Amino acid sequence: MGNLLNVAVMASGRGTNFKALAENCARDNFPASVRLLLVDNPEAGALNVAKRMEIETFIVDCGPKGGTMSMESSRIICDLFQEKEIDLVCLAGFMRIVKKDLLDKYHGRIMNVHPALLPSFKGLDGQKQALDYGVRFSGCTVHFVDKGVDTGPIIIQRVVPVKQDDTEETLSLRILKEEHLAYVRAVRLFAESRLKISGRRVFIDEQ
Amino acid sequence: MGNLLNVAVMASGRGTNFKALAENCARDNFPASVRLLLVDNPEAGALNVAKRMEIETFIVDCGPKGGTMSMESSRIICDLFQEKEIDLVCLAGFMRIVKKDLLDKYHGRIMNVHPALLPSFKGLDGQKQALDYGVRFSGCTVHFVDKGVDTGPIIIQRVVPVKQDDTEETLSLRILKEEHLAYVRAVRLFAESRLKISGRRVFIDEQ
Repeated sequence: MGNLLNVAVMASGRGTNFKALAENCARDNFPASVRLLLVDNPEAGALNVAKRMEIETFIVDCGPKGGTMSMESSRIICDLFQEKEIDLVCLAGFMRIVKKDLLDKYHGRIMNVHPALLPSFKGLDGQKQALDYGVRFSGCTVHFVDKGVDTGPIIIQRVVPVKQDDTEETLSLRILKEEHLAYVRAVRLFAESRLKISGRRVFIDEQ
Repeated sequence: MGNLLNVAVMASGRGTNFKALAENCARDNFPASVRLLLVDNPEAGALNVAKRMEIETFIVDCGPKGGTMSMESSRIICDLFQEKEIDLVCLAGFMRIVKKDLLDKYHGRIMNVHPALLPSFKGLDGQKQALDYGVRFSGCTVHFVDKGVDTGPIIIQRVVPVKQDDTEETLSLRILKEEHLAYVRAVRLFAESRLKISGRRVFIDEQ
């Protein structure tokens, strides 16, 4: 276990991406391991997933729901990650903007997954935005987190068709499957030191 | 010839999309025919293509290069299209914003092709914008033209990968091939009355 990358996942919701990450990291020969789940919401379904998988959980009160994270909670999270020797932070449906102290401490080591082909449809409800706009293709983006919202350097994207009779639910489900694949791949590449950030581009060492 | 859709192409440059449209429309059983090429630039390479293909050409002075189209030139174009009984206007690298009178007269009957997956990378140099942003996929979009720049309802999109060693040239070439396919398909669907605009979405009658 000693040379595995230590991953922390931050979530607010059902935890489908957390589950995909945790399960895949638990496979033989995967170079990373999910050490803990941190949620800002004691009702997050992700907590049950973590308990079933015997992954340590932390509930941090980050202030009023949907608001910015409090400075105090951000400091607590930084200290926790340091104590647990976290190497990589994966946001997985974490519904808050990460504060500067965590961003600085984990510069180039915080990832997020977004349910759209960025830079299209940033922010909330990327799937609904895509349907409303009338695009023929959408998908997901795993990117490094910077101080903007969904603006950081792109690691992996995966494309899905948007069908004429899609609802938000059918499109979201199609994209979600790709999110799992993309996120697991991004974590593997990071753990294998095969990602190089250059400006706002990410180069993958194809080996 | 009587029941073929009459297409006018407006271009400013080399005319690669014009050529693809004209050649494909000239095939047996294609339900549309390119009747004329209109350029705002007497140096446009598209003129030579049109002459070789014996397609009528018109050079209209639209005012200073890169500026808005003059009202006078827009009126001339409207009159020309009416005289030639044009049913559909295809912008193919036409480097000016179409004026309101033409937009109103050909509402839902003006198409454009853009070298990006809209709404990403609107405006000039969509391929360079994509490379600079660091996306993993780009492509092209054929859309109906509205009063915005590259904002109208999307008819067809086609996706291409962006490779790590792509230059603007290699990516542009990859996208251009898809532009040809997408544009020809969009014109065919329009000619077959299989496109229905609803709000900002376009529904295709799949038959």
